[in-house]
Amino acid sequence: MYSFLNNQFLPAEKTFVHVSDLAVQRGYGIFDFFKAVNGKIPFLDDYFNRFYRSADFMQLPVSLSREELKNIVHELLQKNGVADAGIKMVLTGGYSPDGYEIATPNLIITQHTLTMPSAKMLEQGVKIITHEFRREMPLVKSINYTTGVWLQRKVKASNAYDVLYHLQGEVSEFPRCNLFIVNKNGIVMTPANYALEGITRKNILSLSGMEVKATTVTLTDVLQAREVF
Amino acid sequence: MYSFLNNQFLPAEKTFVHVSDLAVQRGYGIFDFFKAVNGKIPFLDDYFNRFYRSADFMQLPVSLSREELKNIVHELLQKNGVADAGIKMVLTGGYSPDGYEIATPNLIITQHTLTMPSAKMLEQGVKIITHEFRREMPLVKSINYTTGVWLQRKVKASNAYDVLYHLQGEVSEFPRCNLFIVNKNGIVMTPANYALEGITRKNILSLSGMEVKATTVTLTDVLQAREVF
Repeated sequence: MYSFLNNQFLPAEKTFVHVSDLAVQRGYGIFDFFKAVNGKIPFLDDYFNRFYRSADFMQLPVSLSREELKNIVHELLQKNGVADAGIKMVLTGGYSPDGYEIATPNLIITQHTLTMPSAKMLEQGVKIITHEFRREMPLVKSINYTTGVWLQRKVKASNAYDVLYHLQGEVSEFPRCNLFIVNKNGIVMTPANYALEGITRKNILSLSGMEVKATTVTLTDVLQAREVF
Repeated sequence: MYSFLNNQFLPAEKTFVHVSDLAVQRGYGIFDFFKAVNGKIPFLDDYFNRFYRSADFMQLPVSLSREELKNIVHELLQKNGVADAGIKMVLTGGYSPDGYEIATPNLIITQHTLTMPSAKMLEQGVKIITHEFRREMPLVKSINYTTGVWLQRKVKASNAYDVLYHLQGEVSEFPRCNLFIVNKNGIVMTPANYALEGITRKNILSLSGMEVKATTVTLTDVLQAREVF
């Protein structure tokens, strides 16, 4: 299995960054994640737009054009000979001489096995817990998951599948995905603010023909909902 | 120059971590930083206590005892033959197979040149700006400096030296240090809540004989203060 680092393909197990990288020193970086299905990547332009937008907001220049990056992602898939996979692109703050100022970003692309929810989970649903928290920069796909990772122990101890963030009762998102509910009147709702702009949200729902209301969603709305997903 | 990684001393420029580390993937880790003066490290026990406390809170086991870690820090200073230096210890979330769950932490110890404020800065003071923000876990020395790093461009553009965090007018801390003021009645004050427990704060001030009131400090208090440091 190969990964990609800056300007070369490397054996995945030999893809290292120096400890002076701002990701290691200050947790500073952005990423994006998308799926390849039958060797094709649905909605790649949307993911790329979000990746470049996050990078720009976080003051991290991307050294490659969208076209060059696209070619590299497809070359990685081909080299690894896998048709269905998750692809993760991370862009870090780079090797900062003083461990604080942004340097030349490191671009890391890795390929991952996809895990899908089991049939039982889809059929029976999953338990979730809640936590009062709002991400620092909710519109950016930064690598800062301090609270999300930290909460995993609590999620497991509660026999839950995930944790829903809210602030004073206004819900925003799960650590790694958006929230949707179908309310008691059959209207599909999703939080309008403080949540990452999901590509799946945008595309799947527009393709499915469902009308989704982006609005304020409260914990009470979630509890009274017909469906939550 | 040497660094230390897990169980070995390595040339500093060859100290790498694999990209699957949770610091790179999720910005997850803790650290601490202290100074060696004439080969001795003042208040080392305080720094170690805070390091182990941060690690414990963040669910990151430290594989070494305080005694073992102390010996390694002193060996590093000796190997590098530097009497005055900054020492940084970082403990990351480790090589996580799924890029999300905490694994076996990586311990990184690096040595840095100390930079002190210039005489002019000490004499004339420095300009600061403010930003509305409170850290996710203010009592823990986590590596998450997303906002602190991100604000550096604004600090520089404002010709300022640093940025003071406040939430609705209640100040907490600078990204990398505590705040103290001497108010108009000559009382030394420092924010009681939402700020990292500074070792310098604790020791220098207790040694100096100054009495410090840990309390709520507002932006108005800062503006009306006789001295700010």
